[in-house]
Amino acid sequence: MKVALAQLNYIIGDFEGNSGKMIDNIERAKNAGADVVVFSELSVTGYYPHDLLEKKEFIRKAEEAVKTIALACKGVAAIVGAPLINENVRGKTLYNAAFFLADGAVRSVHRKTLLPTYDIFDEYRHFEPNHDFRVVQYKGQRIAITICEDLWDEQPTANEFGKNKLYQLSPMQKYSLLSPDIVVNISASPFSYNQESWRKDVLVSKAKRYKVPIVYVNQVGAQTELMFDGGSVYINKKGEIVKELSYFKEDFILVDTKHTGEIKLQPETEPIEKIHDALVMGIHDYFKKMNFKQAVLGLSGGIDSALTVVLAVEALGRENVRVLLLPSRYSSDHSVDDARQLAENLKIQYEIVPIQNAVDQFDETLTPLFKGTEPGIAEENIQARARGIFLMAVSNKFGHILLNTTNKSECAVGYGTLYGDMNGGLAVLGDVYKTDVFKMARFINRNEEIIPENSILKPPSAELRPNQKDTDSLPEYEVLDEILFSFIEQNLSPSEIVAKGFDPATVERVIRMVNTNEYKRFQAAPILRVSSKAFGFGRKMPLVAKY
Amino acid sequence: MKVALAQLNYIIGDFEGNSGKMIDNIERAKNAGADVVVFSELSVTGYYPHDLLEKKEFIRKAEEAVKTIALACKGVAAIVGAPLINENVRGKTLYNAAFFLADGAVRSVHRKTLLPTYDIFDEYRHFEPNHDFRVVQYKGQRIAITICEDLWDEQPTANEFGKNKLYQLSPMQKYSLLSPDIVVNISASPFSYNQESWRKDVLVSKAKRYKVPIVYVNQVGAQTELMFDGGSVYINKKGEIVKELSYFKEDFILVDTKHTGEIKLQPETEPIEKIHDALVMGIHDYFKKMNFKQAVLGLSGGIDSALTVVLAVEALGRENVRVLLLPSRYSSDHSVDDARQLAENLKIQYEIVPIQNAVDQFDETLTPLFKGTEPGIAEENIQARARGIFLMAVSNKFGHILLNTTNKSECAVGYGTLYGDMNGGLAVLGDVYKTDVFKMARFINRNEEIIPENSILKPPSAELRPNQKDTDSLPEYEVLDEILFSFIEQNLSPSEIVAKGFDPATVERVIRMVNTNEYKRFQAAPILRVSSKAFGFGRKMPLVAKY
Repeated sequence: MKVALAQLNYIIGDFEGNSGKMIDNIERAKNAGADVVVFSELSVTGYYPHDLLEKKEFIRKAEEAVKTIALACKGVAAIVGAPLINENVRGKTLYNAAFFLADGAVRSVHRKTLLPTYDIFDEYRHFEPNHDFRVVQYKGQRIAITICEDLWDEQPTANEFGKNKLYQLSPMQKYSLLSPDIVVNISASPFSYNQESWRKDVLVSKAKRYKVPIVYVNQVGAQTELMFDGGSVYINKKGEIVKELSYFKEDFILVDTKHTGEIKLQPETEPIEKIHDALVMGIHDYFKKMNFKQAVLGLSGGIDSALTVVLAVEALGRENVRVLLLPSRYSSDHSVDDARQLAENLKIQYEIVPIQNAVDQFDETLTPLFKGTEPGIAEENIQARARGIFLMAVSNKFGHILLNTTNKSECAVGYGTLYGDMNGGLAVLGDVYKTDVFKMARFINRNEEIIPENSILKPPSAELRPNQKDTDSLPEYEVLDEILFSFIEQNLSPSEIVAKGFDPATVERVIRMVNTNEYKRFQAAPILRVSSKAFGFGRKMPLVAKY
Repeated sequence: MKVALAQLNYIIGDFEGNSGKMIDNIERAKNAGADVVVFSELSVTGYYPHDLLEKKEFIRKAEEAVKTIALACKGVAAIVGAPLINENVRGKTLYNAAFFLADGAVRSVHRKTLLPTYDIFDEYRHFEPNHDFRVVQYKGQRIAITICEDLWDEQPTANEFGKNKLYQLSPMQKYSLLSPDIVVNISASPFSYNQESWRKDVLVSKAKRYKVPIVYVNQVGAQTELMFDGGSVYINKKGEIVKELSYFKEDFILVDTKHTGEIKLQPETEPIEKIHDALVMGIHDYFKKMNFKQAVLGLSGGIDSALTVVLAVEALGRENVRVLLLPSRYSSDHSVDDARQLAENLKIQYEIVPIQNAVDQFDETLTPLFKGTEPGIAEENIQARARGIFLMAVSNKFGHILLNTTNKSECAVGYGTLYGDMNGGLAVLGDVYKTDVFKMARFINRNEEIIPENSILKPPSAELRPNQKDTDSLPEYEVLDEILFSFIEQNLSPSEIVAKGFDPATVERVIRMVNTNEYKRFQAAPILRVSSKAFGFGRKMPLVAKY
């Protein structure tokens, strides 16, 4: 059987655009001689539509789109993902479904069994689970159609409680009783650099155990915070990955399950390059899907804003990125020089906007109120917030979108000013620890010096008071980031982190900083997620709690 | 049987505080001659701990707290709520459980069957549903213990899809087969003024249908956004409400199920008074549970900030509320007078901080960049953001918490400046439509003029340019609020709203404003929820979508 894998980038709710793209790929598959073409999970709506699924009109439009796509399926079949109304009296309103389209109509529907409701997933909010297992027969082949999590009844690593079976049943076990010739899995599985091998491990183990080939088609493209990385695969019944599609871009391939031909895999890349590619895609898709063109950001001469602007230029083109240099009394000359050098290296528009007069005006107006107090956080934050006003003024005046440059380490410990340097429409580095920011800067400079060496080498500083250094109030980033990774990504307890060899007082202080800054992150910009646990909607902590 | 209903206010994760409070009430119940005392859902942890439930240490502490509370149960039994580890190989890590404590130990555990995953609820994220139904026998009585949603297998009103049975089974039907003498329901059911009758309707209908008395104990107190209103009840087997506990405060009552004595109900109040009480509790609990003392906010002379400061004074005391008057060139004299009058009426500390010099400094610095452009939104926002800087400077300097004064109508249509008047630790009126703001101002002034009449009567204006009025860019609030309520709370489609008699172009414009301002609300302060659908985590919309 000839199966086409269509790995596409969808826009949530853009029924016309999504189905147009799918119909083009159905034509392409047909012309290439495919029997069936496979798209990803909820491809008709884009994954994940959240509470748009509660709007009846949205569901009706999805139903119409499925019918329109079905009309294109003549001489070729297609498997598409879309919501399906639950007609039973009991249960949630919808199913998360796959539609088998052939001969111009919907031939069968296949419902998702395992609904993930952890981390960034929330599918039980809208969907009823499936309890009905059957295969579709087409051109003499028995095809079992599964949806993403359906193959994840055993999670690759156990959580803190030692559980790796989060569900009551194994859909593959059920389907295997029906002797399928092929298993199709339509998916929307987001990228995370530290769980990267999980996906292939799960697919390979299922193919091996049940001795059945697996066609796996993932969504690609960014949906605000979530980066879908593609990497769709065809795995033969021995559990060998025979074909692997591109990462971070659309792709299309035709597989003959009888004669798969030579093995085609993607080149191996380092995690830091993958994170880099994910972030560039994240910026690009955010702007493209929102119909935005230009970005603005502030360059401090430090490494975070330097890296952010390089990524923005890669994503949007140098003509669409504009920077402001916003020096204050405490900005060192070399900071301004480094920022200027970077802007010149990138050939982007830059302007110098001194903030000191505005800052002085605030300080002067506040003199009677602040009489008798020592300068401190309040005064430091005025500087960060004045910069925020200048950047937002340019954003509002010219319609540029402000990019936020905060890294994950700062975001975790609250080392940033709310309504100041925490401003922005999108937080590019919010899921990248400072130590990885350095690594990525080195990666950027691998062929030539784009980011000035001085921005990489000098000790990190917010430059909000004379001779300030990050390490005045934080541990060294090598230590800080390991403690944070243990606490956030690995969900370890303080005592388990101390057992790794860290100073107990430092561990306690860092964790307290993470917990007490929940309120700041509540108002942070959306963060491009590249790890298994990003700040944002995949990590819900109560704001008011004593723990 | 003598049953005590203990309606208490818990702090999430404060195991010592919560269990101490519960033990005090066990003593009280014992001294009053109770056989059993009933607490609310997840009372040991506070509802809802979100992803703290993923931390093993958190669960162990909850287990210890249950054991400690059990030790106090000698001569009296207690029913408490806490998480329970799922020891089965398959399924989610935890159950949401009720523990029956007697003779110093845990006598039996009862798991929650129906796990809500709509609106603000997200229980499938952490809990496995129950499938095991049994009663506990105590002092000759058969007690069925249910948890909150367990009685809500039939939802009072259907959603857009006409479904009112969201679950596959009815726990009450199962329990009724076991012939219970009493049904206990431990609950954590938040207040919403427009679904207020639902709760009693559900309880009464279950008591009537199954001819069994129901003891219903709800949590009271605010957990950041959620206002738990209490209102616990005892309903006899005829479905009559015999006892009703207080709203918005802790309460305790003893019921003899044999001789219930005279009927005791709470006085009927208007919705606007209930919303008022909910907001005062919301402010009070946020500050108390976070260990904050003092609030600061900006008074504009308009009605939103006027109402917010009155609520803050009721919640925190006048000595803990401080206001800034932040006039600009466009502030009318009467605005400053109205604000000053209000501060004097309330006898609170106020200071006048003119913002014009700071604003002028921004405009001047930006002159070269803005050359050739007309003044517009960018310049207007500078004013709002300069006010934001002054307020945050005072907040940072003195440790006051900034209260946000944005109302729901503004929040819906994006009529507010991000990083300006959208700043704040808590959005007091973010779930109150402008028309209700007026109603509540009238309620505040029912006995004497606290809010200056002029603030209520004058046409609403942001005063960011000369002679600006809200109605320059928005429909009249009477029209706007009805369209918004139809779209947000009632989830109606544009055509259904037009069918109510509204102008199609206005409906379309308003809905477009709601949809395109999702990005602003993403970064908004936590909102005190008083309706069935507030902005925040109960309404999840994709930021990037074409729909």
